[in-house]
Amino acid sequence: MLNDDVPLLDQHCHGVRTADLDRHEFELLMTEAERLGRDRSPFDSMLGVSLRRLCAPVLGLDPHAEAGDYLARRTELGWLTATRRLLGTSGTRTWLVDTGLTALPLTSPAEFAVLADGQAREVVRLEAVAERVAAGGVAAADLADAVERELRARAVSAAGFKSIAAYRGGLALPGRRPDAASVVRAASRWLSSGRGRLDDRDLLAWLAHVGAEIGAELGLPLQFHTGFGDPDLHLREADPLALTDFLRSTSGTGATVVLLHCWPHHRNAAYLAHVFDHVLVDLGLTIPHVGARAGAVLAETLEIAPWRAVCFSSDGYGLPELHHLGAALWRERCGRLVDEWLADDVLTTRDAERLVTGIAGANAARAYGLDWPQA
Amino acid sequence: MLNDDVPLLDQHCHGVRTADLDRHEFELLMTEAERLGRDRSPFDSMLGVSLRRLCAPVLGLDPHAEAGDYLARRTELGWLTATRRLLGTSGTRTWLVDTGLTALPLTSPAEFAVLADGQAREVVRLEAVAERVAAGGVAAADLADAVERELRARAVSAAGFKSIAAYRGGLALPGRRPDAASVVRAASRWLSSGRGRLDDRDLLAWLAHVGAEIGAELGLPLQFHTGFGDPDLHLREADPLALTDFLRSTSGTGATVVLLHCWPHHRNAAYLAHVFDHVLVDLGLTIPHVGARAGAVLAETLEIAPWRAVCFSSDGYGLPELHHLGAALWRERCGRLVDEWLADDVLTTRDAERLVTGIAGANAARAYGLDWPQA
Amino acid sequence: MLNDDVPLLDQHCHGVRTADLDRHEFELLMTEAERLGRDRSPFDSMLGVSLRRLCAPVLGLDPHAEAGDYLARRTELGWLTATRRLLGTSGTRTWLVDTGLTALPLTSPAEFAVLADGQAREVVRLEAVAERVAAGGVAAADLADAVERELRARAVSAAGFKSIAAYRGGLALPGRRPDAASVVRAASRWLSSGRGRLDDRDLLAWLAHVGAEIGAELGLPLQFHTGFGDPDLHLREADPLALTDFLRSTSGTGATVVLLHCWPHHRNAAYLAHVFDHVLVDLGLTIPHVGARAGAVLAETLEIAPWRAVCFSSDGYGLPELHHLGAALWRERCGRLVDEWLADDVLTTRDAERLVTGIAGANAARAYGLDWPQA
Repeated sequence: MLNDDVPLLDQHCHGVRTADLDRHEFELLMTEAERLGRDRSPFDSMLGVSLRRLCAPVLGLDPHAEAGDYLARRTELGWLTATRRLLGTSGTRTWLVDTGLTALPLTSPAEFAVLADGQAREVVRLEAVAERVAAGGVAAADLADAVERELRARAVSAAGFKSIAAYRGGLALPGRRPDAASVVRAASRWLSSGRGRLDDRDLLAWLAHVGAEIGAELGLPLQFHTGFGDPDLHLREADPLALTDFLRSTSGTGATVVLLHCWPHHRNAAYLAHVFDHVLVDLGLTIPHVGARAGAVLAETLEIAPWRAVCFSSDGYGLPELHHLGAALWRERCGRLVDEWLADDVLTTRDAERLVTGIAGANAARAYGLDWPQA
Repeated sequence: MLNDDVPLLDQHCHGVRTADLDRHEFELLMTEAERLGRDRSPFDSMLGVSLRRLCAPVLGLDPHAEAGDYLARRTELGWLTATRRLLGTSGTRTWLVDTGLTALPLTSPAEFAVLADGQAREVVRLEAVAERVAAGGVAAADLADAVERELRARAVSAAGFKSIAAYRGGLALPGRRPDAASVVRAASRWLSSGRGRLDDRDLLAWLAHVGAEIGAELGLPLQFHTGFGDPDLHLREADPLALTDFLRSTSGTGATVVLLHCWPHHRNAAYLAHVFDHVLVDLGLTIPHVGARAGAVLAETLEIAPWRAVCFSSDGYGLPELHHLGAALWRERCGRLVDEWLADDVLTTRDAERLVTGIAGANAARAYGLDWPQA
Repeated sequence: MLNDDVPLLDQHCHGVRTADLDRHEFELLMTEAERLGRDRSPFDSMLGVSLRRLCAPVLGLDPHAEAGDYLARRTELGWLTATRRLLGTSGTRTWLVDTGLTALPLTSPAEFAVLADGQAREVVRLEAVAERVAAGGVAAADLADAVERELRARAVSAAGFKSIAAYRGGLALPGRRPDAASVVRAASRWLSSGRGRLDDRDLLAWLAHVGAEIGAELGLPLQFHTGFGDPDLHLREADPLALTDFLRSTSGTGATVVLLHCWPHHRNAAYLAHVFDHVLVDLGLTIPHVGARAGAVLAETLEIAPWRAVCFSSDGYGLPELHHLGAALWRERCGRLVDEWLADDVLTTRDAERLVTGIAGANAARAYGLDWPQA
């Protein structure tokens, strides 16, 4: 039932590298570690075997081709052909592209749309906007207004906002937007200390609240990185439960909050989506990483998450393999889970279709205000 | 092996509504959210499909009847007939009814027993007793004595006590009972601030310790809400591990503590039941909510919980469907799990029977001092 | 594929009792509880049924022999014969034996090697060394040097170090080694208060950092107890995520850190092993306890752990049954999991062999510098 015909809306991903990559560059993009261990290859992981199994055929190899053969074939085809095939065969129609990561050169949403032969919309990272405004030169007293102006300007063409507070001290944001005076004081501290990486707690909290407010006004959901990621974050502080006060305070304001990735706190995220009707949850980064375990993680999430609160995304970053894997694994494993429930008479075919098409795209389409079948 | 003949002891539930309910009222009782989302129905959830599957036949419909048809049939039968059928066919013989929730009019234990054609005993909520004593007018210096007197009076006919500290600041209770002077000071603060909802940390800690002490003396277990619930609680503060100091201090005193619900902290609860021989654990609210996943959650709990420390309950509240679902899902999914283990030669039939009959009722019956086969 | 021929390296265990045990003594060694509950036997647990199933045949009984019959047979054979059979048939070739537990008389590594007809190497417990140095009489100003000298002396014949900071206030160790002055102050406090159980936070942090430093220099991994254990620990403080700062600071120094046991925080541990290339993870104590659930827990761990970062151990302690069970359950359940993945075409036979032989021993052998096939 859940076959390649169900179109996907990848509600959170990043651009891809537009270059041929050597093995070291490729492997670094397969892991959240900051460097490759002496005796460890990311190919020796659930993600690694899934990539060889599901991506190798897309490049014309047998499933399970060895890593070296896969990379040789990829180089032979060239990044452009490989990327077009991987994105083009993912069955994803629309991509919401976070443009806030600038450590490596990545495609813009427009470039991504061309490569993928689909639609792409931007997700604007709050902290990146603030850092750019600061870098452009602004007085502390004017920072808040300047950032808010820029967010509104960016919102015109964007589909959503994103906060990476999880990477900047954690998700324990206050329930109230910090007042103007404390924002000016915080801006003064930050700007005078070099306008670099934004990690002031008051400014981060203010940004998240402003993102939620503007988002509520303009219909843009606010995404939060939650759960695992690179070692820059502390996994305990990235527990979405730390957002509880923030979610209480944004409930009923018209804001929509999307909890991304979530693993291993996905049950906590599901709880938040259960009790707060403005909260959605996805598994994003989790799905390509856990590979064949994606169905198990999804089942844990669905224990309590309302069906219409769960979204698909791949969190693909750098390698189009990750975008493809997210889609292929989600199809395979969500499909398997639902088939098991059907075989067990847990639900009806109609229930299953509603569940699957909702996660595939309809739930996100409603939240982001995008055209979508059955949204 | 685990069929409808195994009687259940529902060691934690609430009364039911004695009125016909409209769809909005019914759906609100299906969820822990405080309001129904614009585009979400609680029927689109594991609980929703389970309710349609397992309760519809009780009301004479086909399994999986659509929500609208189910509710129409329920109205046609009337709440009284529907309730009698749902409770009467649950296979539950004895119900321990928490009477502390007064937001909605619910049946008393005596009324419940009549509707269910079974036995019902009261579980007395500590905080409700304290709030009633305060509302009745008492001096701060007399509050402790008055509450303790009232608890002893209520204990005469009750089966156990219950604490909802999880909803009033969390489970991080001190290992020591606050001393008399600090209780008087806390009582003074609370009474002078309006005698409303009790959320003073000292009084809550004192109440829990007093509940454990009186319970130890009179043979009444003390239940704690732990794990998920409505958004009034912070799920992290409802982690039963926060009770560690309290459990250390009550160990060996004769007190029995029952950890209710637990999800998603059920493995933590199982650990506490493993290391403290006066601690029991149930899954309560979890079972109706997670539906077909109840076996998976139970399996995680049984990884380390002593078999004789695990109890069944439904946490049914308001809707007799929830009482029925808890029982039906537990039978089905615990039965399935044990059948799989039998097929895999993990245990013997005799082991399986001991495991199942213990959880079904014998373990709780020993703890509460109730008559029960094989207790 | 994963049969009895795959040799195991048990990278964390303890010695065994060299005496015939009565039922009470035996049962106390089956549980992490400090005493046996009135109405609970540890045989009524996943560990209990696994022990009867898998150890009874080793002693010449049918699988699932009743507990009383098992213990009678064990007594009839005598502890020596039973121990030789249980260790000798485990398929474990090399044992790394933590010698830091002295509450009961246990075999030394040399004695253990004879009983097991295998190789045994010592793991030196940091806190035990410090406590012994203190008990021997040392001035506060000399403690650090004396402990470091003793650790270096013990390192000559040892395979690794172990920290039980989890049991002494928790794993939230600082990222920096406490400076000399604060170590002297802490030593002064501790020595003047009786030189007993070491639970000073500064000294524990210093010890862990020194263990990591000497280990990096001499090639000895540093093991940490994490996750569940006896009620002396607080399970939340034993979450390996509390080690995040310590792991950040030891990353790239040449140190290797092994997270032991981990349950129920095994997904957190897997994350740490994913992002830090000097971190390994095992399930140790978890496997005998969860019995037939070992495959499920291992699957959760493998969701994100690099395959070459996962190790086998039994954490056997006191009873050779536990060493045997750890090995037998790991073989059975890891084998089952991999067989399911093979049947599902998730990976190739070659992948499966790499995964299994790595966990069985090759990964640990590389970390500890031991001879091993395919290490």
